[in-house]
Amino acid sequence: MTHRPKKVLRPFSLDKSNGLCLQDQVRRGIINLVLARTWPFGYKLPSSRALAELLGVSRNTVSLAYQRLVADGYLSAVPRSGLFVAMDLNAGLISPGLVAGGEVVRRETDSFWADRLGRGGELTRSPDWRRFAYPLVDSGFDSGLFPAEDWREATTLSLKRGQIISWAGLSDDDPVLIDEIRNKVLPRRGIYAQPDEILLTLGAQQARALCMDLLCRDGARVAVEEPGQPEIRVLAKRLGATLLPMQVDSEGLVPNERLRSCDVLVVTPSHQLPTGATLAANRRTALMEMLPGSSLVIVEDDFESETNYLDEPQPALRSFEHGGRVIYIASLNKLLDPNICLGFIVADAPVIARLRELRRLGGPPPPVNNQRAAAQFLALGHYDRMMRRLAREFHERMLSLRDALNHYMPRVVEIEPPRGGTTLWVRGPAGLDIEALAELAHERGVLFERVEPYYAGTVPAGLFRLGVSCIAKDRIRDGISELASALSELISGKRKPSGELLTHDELVRLMTGAQLGCRTIYGDPCTIELYPDGRMSGAAGFRNEDCDTGRWWIEGDRWYRQWRNWAYGEAAGFQVVLRGDVIHWVNAQGRSFDWATLSPNVHLAP
Amino acid sequence: MTHRPKKVLRPFSLDKSNGLCLQDQVRRGIINLVLARTWPFGYKLPSSRALAELLGVSRNTVSLAYQRLVADGYLSAVPRSGLFVAMDLNAGLISPGLVAGGEVVRRETDSFWADRLGRGGELTRSPDWRRFAYPLVDSGFDSGLFPAEDWREATTLSLKRGQIISWAGLSDDDPVLIDEIRNKVLPRRGIYAQPDEILLTLGAQQARALCMDLLCRDGARVAVEEPGQPEIRVLAKRLGATLLPMQVDSEGLVPNERLRSCDVLVVTPSHQLPTGATLAANRRTALMEMLPGSSLVIVEDDFESETNYLDEPQPALRSFEHGGRVIYIASLNKLLDPNICLGFIVADAPVIARLRELRRLGGPPPPVNNQRAAAQFLALGHYDRMMRRLAREFHERMLSLRDALNHYMPRVVEIEPPRGGTTLWVRGPAGLDIEALAELAHERGVLFERVEPYYAGTVPAGLFRLGVSCIAKDRIRDGISELASALSELISGKRKPSGELLTHDELVRLMTGAQLGCRTIYGDPCTIELYPDGRMSGAAGFRNEDCDTGRWWIEGDRWYRQWRNWAYGEAAGFQVVLRGDVIHWVNAQGRSFDWATLSPNVHLAP
Repeated sequence: MTHRPKKVLRPFSLDKSNGLCLQDQVRRGIINLVLARTWPFGYKLPSSRALAELLGVSRNTVSLAYQRLVADGYLSAVPRSGLFVAMDLNAGLISPGLVAGGEVVRRETDSFWADRLGRGGELTRSPDWRRFAYPLVDSGFDSGLFPAEDWREATTLSLKRGQIISWAGLSDDDPVLIDEIRNKVLPRRGIYAQPDEILLTLGAQQARALCMDLLCRDGARVAVEEPGQPEIRVLAKRLGATLLPMQVDSEGLVPNERLRSCDVLVVTPSHQLPTGATLAANRRTALMEMLPGSSLVIVEDDFESETNYLDEPQPALRSFEHGGRVIYIASLNKLLDPNICLGFIVADAPVIARLRELRRLGGPPPPVNNQRAAAQFLALGHYDRMMRRLAREFHERMLSLRDALNHYMPRVVEIEPPRGGTTLWVRGPAGLDIEALAELAHERGVLFERVEPYYAGTVPAGLFRLGVSCIAKDRIRDGISELASALSELISGKRKPSGELLTHDELVRLMTGAQLGCRTIYGDPCTIELYPDGRMSGAAGFRNEDCDTGRWWIEGDRWYRQWRNWAYGEAAGFQVVLRGDVIHWVNAQGRSFDWATLSPNVHLAP
Repeated sequence: MTHRPKKVLRPFSLDKSNGLCLQDQVRRGIINLVLARTWPFGYKLPSSRALAELLGVSRNTVSLAYQRLVADGYLSAVPRSGLFVAMDLNAGLISPGLVAGGEVVRRETDSFWADRLGRGGELTRSPDWRRFAYPLVDSGFDSGLFPAEDWREATTLSLKRGQIISWAGLSDDDPVLIDEIRNKVLPRRGIYAQPDEILLTLGAQQARALCMDLLCRDGARVAVEEPGQPEIRVLAKRLGATLLPMQVDSEGLVPNERLRSCDVLVVTPSHQLPTGATLAANRRTALMEMLPGSSLVIVEDDFESETNYLDEPQPALRSFEHGGRVIYIASLNKLLDPNICLGFIVADAPVIARLRELRRLGGPPPPVNNQRAAAQFLALGHYDRMMRRLAREFHERMLSLRDALNHYMPRVVEIEPPRGGTTLWVRGPAGLDIEALAELAHERGVLFERVEPYYAGTVPAGLFRLGVSCIAKDRIRDGISELASALSELISGKRKPSGELLTHDELVRLMTGAQLGCRTIYGDPCTIELYPDGRMSGAAGFRNEDCDTGRWWIEGDRWYRQWRNWAYGEAAGFQVVLRGDVIHWVNAQGRSFDWATLSPNVHLAP
């Protein structure tokens, strides 16, 4: 038998992908072994050469890690003898031996808690969007959008010694951040506030919870948007309030005389949550005029005010006359909110003082280190740059979503034209089974947003929502293509319009020189002209604001077209069925793809 | 007349103390001017030479700031013409002109809100300790204790690109931090938990609020410590619970058969809040034995478990048999809590699942960037080092407090011997007016802690609390000296014991070879022996564990003593009154300073 060296196991392994340098990973690995007592007090460490070989790193890496561990008191060096674990973890600490075997004991109290905990489940959780190839939802952010460099710079500044001294132990709102918010963020919403009129919160959601807590005691009448945020309804109901659902249409909340008898109205004027509608200017005025003489307080949740890139921005309700009756809620940004969790409330000073008390009952203010880092982020102008970058990015994604929907979606769905924001509200054909659609879509890697949780009452059939905050621009087209396929599978009753497919000769006769009228998926009119020489032109929108040109031709019994920009500039061929003066295009799968009306008596010259 | 140059004002000023480099300050100043539209779109900037002169910095500093501003899109460079403001803030933004004059309008809605907001003021706020020379309280931290270097390192690691990608948009508990807590923090308390048995919270206070929210519905019977945390009482009452105050003594909460009929008990076993008492081992067992057969749930608030430096640490209730009925609350650390705001709850998985829902209603999880930085802080062993450093620091401060109290405090006060922690519970003489004492103390720069807020029922007279978390070790002695003076001023009835002051000769006769019995301010016995040769020895404590030697002598009608260590090793002289066999020492202000009993029939040989 040959002699084989004794197998020595690596004490820990290194991970090259986690962003830590090797020296830090070695140091961390050793600290873990010491703290877990795997290498107990007095244990002699392997030589740096031996450990370096085991781990597959340079000896220098291990030596530097060892040096730091000695300086930090984990190891001590005994001259001519080596390094030893220097930390006696048993001094003053509970020994794991006190607990039976140090093993995990799953406790047998499940039935006790099942009786005790009650129902729960008031809020639904959507599936984790990260598991989907095409997450067309608005429940998170791809981390690529996070302004890593800028945030790192702001944080680094906030960690300078002089800065730390000024925030450590502050345990309240950082006056530096309050000033940045009132000088740079609020004026854009038309709001001018004193420092005692602002309270920082852990994201917008804590702001909502605090306002409900303040205003919803004793059977208060609370008007909420329907559809609207489920969290607001749950909070209000837990506090014993009576809910009054308010109608929402494409111009946002519909004001109503019943509001005069309410105590609270919660409204999302910038972009209604969830429909994305912007509250019209005349409705804003109508709401504010209800305040004198009533006891109504408006909680203005300025959701997604930062993505007003398609509409003229409207000033906040808080900036109107009688704005003292408005409690304004916002977060620094949709992107920073879920990560850095900084939101704020603007209200009259006595209101802020009471909200500050309520905040204290529920926990500390937002972490002061993040407050100061955010203040630096604003002071250095990174916030401003981020806002412009995000508006540009979301605008492009929404255009991409719009184009993809127009190209792929069967004409049975209806979509409100986008008004900024990051979502679109979609209405499928009557009888569409959303549950079944979700299942088919999941199989194809597509996650869309269910709207059921937003409704307190009956949920209109066939509705769903598409969002672009989690998906990169260049993946939107494929995602919508998959979703359209899933939808087509479901509505297979529409397989092919009845009627004969036109032959080659019939196609030539029909199409040459024709003018076709059709509609985009958003309901905009669109005119297409097919010139006898094979040129083609199109104009969409009520003022023909969206134009394109292209070529058309016929091969066998298929009609082909290729736009310069529209339909991604790709050539596509269809068979055609003519019923009356309506042309139905049939795609390669034999399904009805789109339709158009032949303009009578139009015959374009060559 | 001489020609005087036109006076040019600095556009902004620089602050050399705020820890930002000059280039960043220049950049920031310009961004502020641009965002405030003081330098509007198209404004031509001063040359770098001119601005450098105005600000008193090098031209290179300004040039570098300009370069960065051009790169960031704030400025644009026009060749041979100069730099101009490039950002059009009016595009897509609300103009301040929309709001009357852009001026602050204080709204006239105060009376509306006064009617609407109700009483409030359920929690008292103590004065800001930073305004006092001697803040002997436990309401914050001197920022010098913050582990700035180590936190900076941990944060820097968490900001590496690979790290940011893994936490940005996480919006939930970071599994990396959960693992660090269950592997490194909980085992020291005897607790072994699965990841789904841990919920992160915004400091311990959010954990308390969530537990009360979960358990206090529907007229629940909630047992609380008296004295105890006022926040717990307010939270329980707001939720409609009935409070049962439980007695607390020097061994913590006194278990009581009434507990069997309660739904919830909130207890602080490591250090009772506010008395600092540690729950005795037999009481822990007694509490846990009440669980089977009752519907009691214990909320174990492991307050200050990290400062167990004087007692043997006791395992957490959660680690006992029936521990599934215990909901365990802690924060990473008293020091990190008010800044970084990371607390956590350990409970059975179904309980954690419900608490997670409740947390979601109130806001997002703790900011994920801090979660990851804290995970790095733990992984690198900084947490462990900080805990050891703080235990050492607090231990030293408490010793310093103990010595100062023993030296300066008139013997009319009673103090429980310290049991670790960072506070001492002090009982003044009967009839002591705490309000008046606080006023006199404030005049002398001393802030002590009022105990009234901790009591739901009658507040025992003359109690107050001293804490060391905000005051440096070397200031404690002076603070206690000032507090003792304030106290002496108040209890001037005790000016001088009645009786004649002893003369020189009487002193010599009385003291030479005497053995004196006295008590420390903590009630420990102390024996002092005065040898005829002027040597002196002392032994204090029940096992004479604290010994010292020194010298004594007589000058005129004053007796002097100087210990080697005790009483700060300083010489001090007193006049003496003898009443029966009790010696009363009278200090220079003519006030009774301390007393001792002469041991009869003892006469020490030379």
